[in-house]
Amino acid sequence: MPVVVQNIPRATPEVIAGLAEAGVATVHEAQGRRGCLAASMRPIYSGARIAGSAVTISAAPGDNWMLHVAIEQVQEGDILVLAPTSPCDNGYFGDLLATSAMARGCKGLIIDAGCRDIRDLTEMGFPVWSRAISAQGTVKETLGSVNVPIVCAGQAIEAGDVIVADDDGVCVVRCAEAEEVLAAARARTANEEMKRKRLASGELGLDLYDMRPRLAEKGLKYV
Amino acid sequence: MPVVVQNIPRATPEVIAGLAEAGVATVHEAQGRRGCLAASMRPIYSGARIAGSAVTISAAPGDNWMLHVAIEQVQEGDILVLAPTSPCDNGYFGDLLATSAMARGCKGLIIDAGCRDIRDLTEMGFPVWSRAISAQGTVKETLGSVNVPIVCAGQAIEAGDVIVADDDGVCVVRCAEAEEVLAAARARTANEEMKRKRLASGELGLDLYDMRPRLAEKGLKYV
Amino acid sequence: MPVVVQNIPRATPEVIAGLAEAGVATVHEAQGRRGCLAASMRPIYSGARIAGSAVTISAAPGDNWMLHVAIEQVQEGDILVLAPTSPCDNGYFGDLLATSAMARGCKGLIIDAGCRDIRDLTEMGFPVWSRAISAQGTVKETLGSVNVPIVCAGQAIEAGDVIVADDDGVCVVRCAEAEEVLAAARARTANEEMKRKRLASGELGLDLYDMRPRLAEKGLKYV
Amino acid sequence: MPVVVQNIPRATPEVIAGLAEAGVATVHEAQGRRGCLAASMRPIYSGARIAGSAVTISAAPGDNWMLHVAIEQVQEGDILVLAPTSPCDNGYFGDLLATSAMARGCKGLIIDAGCRDIRDLTEMGFPVWSRAISAQGTVKETLGSVNVPIVCAGQAIEAGDVIVADDDGVCVVRCAEAEEVLAAARARTANEEMKRKRLASGELGLDLYDMRPRLAEKGLKYV
Amino acid sequence: MPVVVQNIPRATPEVIAGLAEAGVATVHEAQGRRGCLAASMRPIYSGARIAGSAVTISAAPGDNWMLHVAIEQVQEGDILVLAPTSPCDNGYFGDLLATSAMARGCKGLIIDAGCRDIRDLTEMGFPVWSRAISAQGTVKETLGSVNVPIVCAGQAIEAGDVIVADDDGVCVVRCAEAEEVLAAARARTANEEMKRKRLASGELGLDLYDMRPRLAEKGLKYV
Amino acid sequence: MPVVVQNIPRATPEVIAGLAEAGVATVHEAQGRRGCLAASMRPIYSGARIAGSAVTISAAPGDNWMLHVAIEQVQEGDILVLAPTSPCDNGYFGDLLATSAMARGCKGLIIDAGCRDIRDLTEMGFPVWSRAISAQGTVKETLGSVNVPIVCAGQAIEAGDVIVADDDGVCVVRCAEAEEVLAAARARTANEEMKRKRLASGELGLDLYDMRPRLAEKGLKYV
Repeated sequence: MPVVVQNIPRATPEVIAGLAEAGVATVHEAQGRRGCLAASMRPIYSGARIAGSAVTISAAPGDNWMLHVAIEQVQEGDILVLAPTSPCDNGYFGDLLATSAMARGCKGLIIDAGCRDIRDLTEMGFPVWSRAISAQGTVKETLGSVNVPIVCAGQAIEAGDVIVADDDGVCVVRCAEAEEVLAAARARTANEEMKRKRLASGELGLDLYDMRPRLAEKGLKYV
Repeated sequence: MPVVVQNIPRATPEVIAGLAEAGVATVHEAQGRRGCLAASMRPIYSGARIAGSAVTISAAPGDNWMLHVAIEQVQEGDILVLAPTSPCDNGYFGDLLATSAMARGCKGLIIDAGCRDIRDLTEMGFPVWSRAISAQGTVKETLGSVNVPIVCAGQAIEAGDVIVADDDGVCVVRCAEAEEVLAAARARTANEEMKRKRLASGELGLDLYDMRPRLAEKGLKYV
Repeated sequence: MPVVVQNIPRATPEVIAGLAEAGVATVHEAQGRRGCLAASMRPIYSGARIAGSAVTISAAPGDNWMLHVAIEQVQEGDILVLAPTSPCDNGYFGDLLATSAMARGCKGLIIDAGCRDIRDLTEMGFPVWSRAISAQGTVKETLGSVNVPIVCAGQAIEAGDVIVADDDGVCVVRCAEAEEVLAAARARTANEEMKRKRLASGELGLDLYDMRPRLAEKGLKYV
Repeated sequence: MPVVVQNIPRATPEVIAGLAEAGVATVHEAQGRRGCLAASMRPIYSGARIAGSAVTISAAPGDNWMLHVAIEQVQEGDILVLAPTSPCDNGYFGDLLATSAMARGCKGLIIDAGCRDIRDLTEMGFPVWSRAISAQGTVKETLGSVNVPIVCAGQAIEAGDVIVADDDGVCVVRCAEAEEVLAAARARTANEEMKRKRLASGELGLDLYDMRPRLAEKGLKYV
Repeated sequence: MPVVVQNIPRATPEVIAGLAEAGVATVHEAQGRRGCLAASMRPIYSGARIAGSAVTISAAPGDNWMLHVAIEQVQEGDILVLAPTSPCDNGYFGDLLATSAMARGCKGLIIDAGCRDIRDLTEMGFPVWSRAISAQGTVKETLGSVNVPIVCAGQAIEAGDVIVADDDGVCVVRCAEAEEVLAAARARTANEEMKRKRLASGELGLDLYDMRPRLAEKGLKYV
Repeated sequence: MPVVVQNIPRATPEVIAGLAEAGVATVHEAQGRRGCLAASMRPIYSGARIAGSAVTISAAPGDNWMLHVAIEQVQEGDILVLAPTSPCDNGYFGDLLATSAMARGCKGLIIDAGCRDIRDLTEMGFPVWSRAISAQGTVKETLGSVNVPIVCAGQAIEAGDVIVADDDGVCVVRCAEAEEVLAAARARTANEEMKRKRLASGELGLDLYDMRPRLAEKGLKYV
């Protein structure tokens, strides 16, 4: 059953760049409050903001063999996304794998497990979102698969889906919906700019969004 | 039952400023090791150190409607404190709400749930202590209450209680006890200064606190 | 049964310095993927990288009395390692204890419980790896032991074992094995340098490590 | 500050018996979806269903001294409710304390910590709701308080509040509201009986509660 | 976006009955160690062993409205499977909903959230696998969807997939693979019968599976 | 480094039987409140009460190969004790392994990971204490060790140590201390019998243990 799928769909670089700029919170809202990975996925350092096509990896617990296989499938701008077949916090990924991935154009790693060599990765500027930081190493004994559908941190992800990640976490956008989501995200961002100005001037959200009648109708009492 | 209480007691700005300066650990000790919220409440960025009167919010899980209602109740220097009625890690709060809250003089947010737009909030200098960072959005469907007694991260909090928050976490001081706690905190700080000097010179705590007789009496053996 | 053991073995300063330089991930690999403490142990600030001989502490939950006793046993370059006798997140350690420990030459603290005064400790440059940050204070009522075998964050640790800690977490090396582990770590580091260059040039791990035949033999299919 | 409050309010035995019969889920709904303790509080055996006035205990972590003090304050039908001042899973309570508590008429224990002697307690028919089962013992070194306000498993509880506990968990009812909540619970139970019959006959909730128009109005599509 | 899909595929009753008899552990092995939901999903009582076609529900946190909508879609033998759109432990389901579901032929519920009325459900013989037991109620304010793809407790599930559940947990089998998996499960069960007899007679797994040569080759030493 | 140690010390059957009868809570107190494994270790069914010599297993995450190796080392009355080298909830053990272990005289399994085939194990009367129940299977790829020192659920355990397990959890007694601990446990049990009678008659612990003077001295106030 272990398999490596070599051809995957990808969104255009322009769409991907637009989604990175919009950011996780906006993209997630723009597609109907869908797509966020679990809040346990945290960046290993602050300030990174990336998007890219997912190269997915299904790996055995405590076994990072498939990362080597997956790196060969990476194209410029892709993001590696690894889900272990059962929960595991081991440090699957460190500076050597990051060196190899960067040499292939990889922009970052999303891993529902552990990562290590944090200082090196930070200096190299290779961002990782993981659920743990752990020096505990792994073996290379059991096969897994590359570019198959996985569930990572609570979200179903397919190879080629667009991953957006920043300090707020990680969000997935279906490849086929990426363009439409970008349009919705841009509309949302434009709209927020106007709201931000009015709120900054002291106008209340209660008035800006005309909430008072509905609050009263639902029965809110002021005492 | 949903209600907004409009008049709440507040400690004086001088007392509040004194408690902020004393910091969470000292304030908590000064009131008899009471008042710490759960250790799961962490700041979204390091270095903030605030105190203020609590404007409390009881909100449904995944519903941030009451934040808009609460912001109208904020006075200069207040702190918003939100507890969901059942456990929830959703991102209730982001940069638009922060813009609105800052325009009203709000100093920060304590939320036993999730927060988002971390990069924007950090740049704006609006500190949040939360139990999660999550881009997962919320709805505006269910009423809650403002300025009612809540339990937030394991502590009972009433509107007007003084909230102290820094890198060590969050502590609550009853409004009526704030002046007395500040006096005890100041005495404690003065006393610690002397101890710090003696310990820095190499004197042992065993001698400074005269612990050796009591250790021997309880049966500690040196081998 | 409470006891303070006053004489403990220690590795040489040269070996200890070498292990600090190698870092947690490398040291852990060099001794056969053993010795990592649980991933829940995180540094209170980034960038510290230390090694030292363990002065172990077994303490009652919520009771930091034995830290004062242990500091007297510290020699230049030692690291304090505390395990509570049952799980506890209280803030056992803050700036006064750190001042005292630093005055004795202590390099840092590993504590499977909570720590506080984070801002002060960061400014002082006293690194702590803990499983929680908590302002919740402790008492001084119950005896424990110093320099006895403990289990800390899932690892058995004896007094004098070498502790290595950095941004990746914490690893323990048996005192008697420290020299041999250092040799293995140095060999490993040298070997990694060569690999890093080849990977940076775009060579794949699949080829560098000659993995293709074994992957094929185990049944990996490319589609 | 350690104190034992000797006089506490209590609801009448009839009201308490009525609330026990209604059960946790119904009582909680009857008071507006309020009062449930955290879901981590589980019974040590199935099938118990009790209510009683809370004798509250604030105890140090790993210290069960105050349970002995509290048992003297128990009156026939009361329930002991213990919250540690910081999180702790130790086994505070076992068969000897249960023997003593039963001799005083105590109906059960709610403890946001650990319990032990599970087999004995089950045979004795003394129910306990706890967040852990742990043989790890405690000491008797630090004072706490009895019949003061506590926060237990996320709920603020005062001495004399009515505790209701069954296989669904634990709920607290303010002493002053107990009679009113019982009336609401009885109305609810009567109303549910009718609904149960109609649902059992195959009628859908969609029709019984007339939900179809509101679902359509909110935009639900059938495809 | 909220939608109810009314036509879903279903495996035959014979295949479903066969999978129920095989049980979770065997079915999961038979399809290549895939399909297990997270270990946090536990039955509310012991001994139930069911299989059925999934009627999937995506619901807002703390909102059980869609359960009423989903029950109308249930056919004889189906199993309800609910995933909240963000983590939530509320008690979405109790005896009234169970009465309604049973009247429609529903065999059980899989819910990555909370359940209540445990005593009633046990007496009714309606099995539930949940991640929490909680009396905390829900509202009916926000739309969700029925029979759309969901991720429940870490597994992607589509409407009509076969759910198998017993004391070991829950496993999902793709509808299109159900027949093939059943065949593999039956082969496995037959094969295990022979092994069980030889092991019961004292033969070692080391010999039965001929493991000794491979252990020696990998370097296992006996001392 | 993978090794199987074939000769291990064992306590006498009489001492082991005595410790089983005393039970976990008493044994743990008798050796000075030491030896309890983490409270996360729960029995798969209620009522089992065993003791035996530990045959220890250090196994890779998600790999149960070493269980087959360990069973060959079991002697009549032994208990298998498995710790994964990094955290893992997979179901390492089921009915076939239990059949094999029982045929060798094994009394039970302590595993800081997952177990499956719960219904079968319960019917067979083979008790297991685990931190998870999970049908998720394992592989047989990586070597581990048998009868080496391990850390299991927070306790250091050596081959031949006596394991005591019942509904309260699991406790370890050093082989060399087993006789002495049994004597202390018996003294304790005898002493508790007298106390139980006096407490059952209504005498308070406050009086039985003469606590009132010490409470007063520490400052407890009655109001």
